[in-house]
Amino acid sequence: FRRIVLNNPRRRNALSLSMLESLRENILADVDKPDLRVIVLSARGPVFSSGHDLAELTSSQGRDYHTQVFHTCAEVMTLLQDIPVPVIAMVDGVATAAGCQLVASCDVAVATEKSTFATPGVNVGLFCSTPAVAIGRAVPRKVAMEMLLTGSPISAQEALLHGLISRVVPEGRLEEETLAIARRVCRSSRPVVALGKATFYRQMAQGRDAAYATASRVMVENLALPDGQEGIRAFLEKRRPAWSHAAE
Amino acid sequence: FRRIVLNNPRRRNALSLSMLESLRENILADVDKPDLRVIVLSARGPVFSSGHDLAELTSSQGRDYHTQVFHTCAEVMTLLQDIPVPVIAMVDGVATAAGCQLVASCDVAVATEKSTFATPGVNVGLFCSTPAVAIGRAVPRKVAMEMLLTGSPISAQEALLHGLISRVVPEGRLEEETLAIARRVCRSSRPVVALGKATFYRQMAQGRDAAYATASRVMVENLALPDGQEGIRAFLEKRRPAWSHAAE
Amino acid sequence: FRRIVLNNPRRRNALSLSMLESLRENILADVDKPDLRVIVLSARGPVFSSGHDLAELTSSQGRDYHTQVFHTCAEVMTLLQDIPVPVIAMVDGVATAAGCQLVASCDVAVATEKSTFATPGVNVGLFCSTPAVAIGRAVPRKVAMEMLLTGSPISAQEALLHGLISRVVPEGRLEEETLAIARRVCRSSRPVVALGKATFYRQMAQGRDAAYATASRVMVENLALPDGQEGIRAFLEKRRPAWSHAAE
Repeated sequence: FRRIVLNNPRRRNALSLSMLESLRENILADVDKPDLRVIVLSARGPVFSSGHDLAELTSSQGRDYHTQVFHTCAEVMTLLQDIPVPVIAMVDGVATAAGCQLVASCDVAVATEKSTFATPGVNVGLFCSTPAVAIGRAVPRKVAMEMLLTGSPISAQEALLHGLISRVVPEGRLEEETLAIARRVCRSSRPVVALGKATFYRQMAQGRDAAYATASRVMVENLALPDGQEGIRAFLEKRRPAWSHAAE
Repeated sequence: FRRIVLNNPRRRNALSLSMLESLRENILADVDKPDLRVIVLSARGPVFSSGHDLAELTSSQGRDYHTQVFHTCAEVMTLLQDIPVPVIAMVDGVATAAGCQLVASCDVAVATEKSTFATPGVNVGLFCSTPAVAIGRAVPRKVAMEMLLTGSPISAQEALLHGLISRVVPEGRLEEETLAIARRVCRSSRPVVALGKATFYRQMAQGRDAAYATASRVMVENLALPDGQEGIRAFLEKRRPAWSHAAE
Repeated sequence: FRRIVLNNPRRRNALSLSMLESLRENILADVDKPDLRVIVLSARGPVFSSGHDLAELTSSQGRDYHTQVFHTCAEVMTLLQDIPVPVIAMVDGVATAAGCQLVASCDVAVATEKSTFATPGVNVGLFCSTPAVAIGRAVPRKVAMEMLLTGSPISAQEALLHGLISRVVPEGRLEEETLAIARRVCRSSRPVVALGKATFYRQMAQGRDAAYATASRVMVENLALPDGQEGIRAFLEKRRPAWSHAAE
């Protein structure tokens, strides 16, 4: 698997336009290579990410520049879900605004007990409306609205309780627990995981009956994959499957 | 009320095509009879249901057969919500893959503390995409994605925390607590419950304003039912209502 | 900020048509005045609100009257979300049926430990279908369905766990904690909060990609507001922002 590390702790890993572009590039690099099976996204320093770089959002940069920043940001966040490889956020510290959106946009998120999550844009006159797209789809609406309206942080435990993250671990076990999940994902067939991940987000955007029609078709396709048949044969023969990871 | 019991513990109550067909038949039997007011769905043995019968999903069965299996499965799962009678899952043990989907598709679910829930299809090369339709609509997305990507089980407490089940009880009280809910449902008017259940799922698929238009119309219809008027008269006269259970 | 107090404890703050109309009037009063920055909705007496006044729902009132009641109710509930000012429910006691819907419809809700929440309409032959519109969008489906089918109350802790309310506090601290949230909201720029609140509900009704397109456009608009630029300048200059609260 691959690791992507936000590596600008002095700027609190702010998502400047260049940071977003480099993130996009890193997410897309080798994404279709059979070897790449999971991405772990982490950060150096006590702040996972503080969100947009506010210095880039002054009027002197101009409207077109602002548009480009938010467009690139949305692209990164949706890419995390649209690539065929699962992305696990490994969070140790503060994730605010677009940094919180980044965590919400990953498929899985593991965080240390001391981590906190907030959408404080309202305090600087920039309501966290784009982070709300991801966060509002991850947690109950009342939780999202209180975060957005007050800007107050929630703890890792609250984030877990409300579905923003998948798991809370003691600080010393963050790496271990995250890699355990990454390794579990790596034990599976790449095209099976890719088909499953794509189908999950697709069917969730549909009504129930359309979702079942989509997912039922996908199950039949999945069975027709070489690894679909191998997995079931291995199960029936009580042996471990030998994945080919072949797309067809 | 009626009970449906999955009764093939030796095959871990696998949802073979014939099991699914018999389930469909049982769900539909007498479903329009005024006497039937609630269905309790349980299972014999330590496994509530292990999901599809993988022996039926080998390439030797062929694509058409696979299509029929998933089509029948989706039919059973949506029927549970579309019939006019509430269905309560009573779970004591392991519910995996389509077995977990079955629990997620019931209106209410009571489980013992030792019960566990998983979507381990990814381990045998068959991502649980159809179970994800029901589970993704029951729990937060990050919880669903971690279950689907890792195949690891969650405990009854976690399932409760995330909304997959309604209640966790000690093993000795499963029957008692489930039947208490069933009895409460039986105390209400059948056509009122039927109208309410149908409206719930219908309006949840709509936007807020359309949902209010739907639900407001239904409230007026509900009041016009004989039992709608009887209920309110009884309340005002401080006596117990005498339901006719008449549809009009 | 403004307070709206349900003030008919003898009738358990029932939402009669006249109470709903007065609520609508109070919600809309001065809603466009720059001074109004948050509304706190509370109630006198041990019952926050018992829901519709059942005496108004007998057959003697007639179908048109019933239609008007539910129409006005839906109007009040949607107004709470559609006005530019955040609304905080401050709950100390029982909130049932449309009273529970009222809590679910506010942007934020703080409740005392002894508060309870229920949709008991089914017991009087009137399934809580309109409350279900708001409650079904606030809590997991299984929780909503058990509440609706059984009519049994849930505790404040359960309501918190499932997202129906934002916070549970000891009785002696209800006022203090609620006003702390209200004060935090008042510290922000009114047009920024208004834009953010409107965008939140709008984008939540859209698919992910459309939601990002909407929210990204709004972020650029937000930055172009006088208070958008002031907030970011103040942040960069390490001083407190001086909001103009000007809409453009």
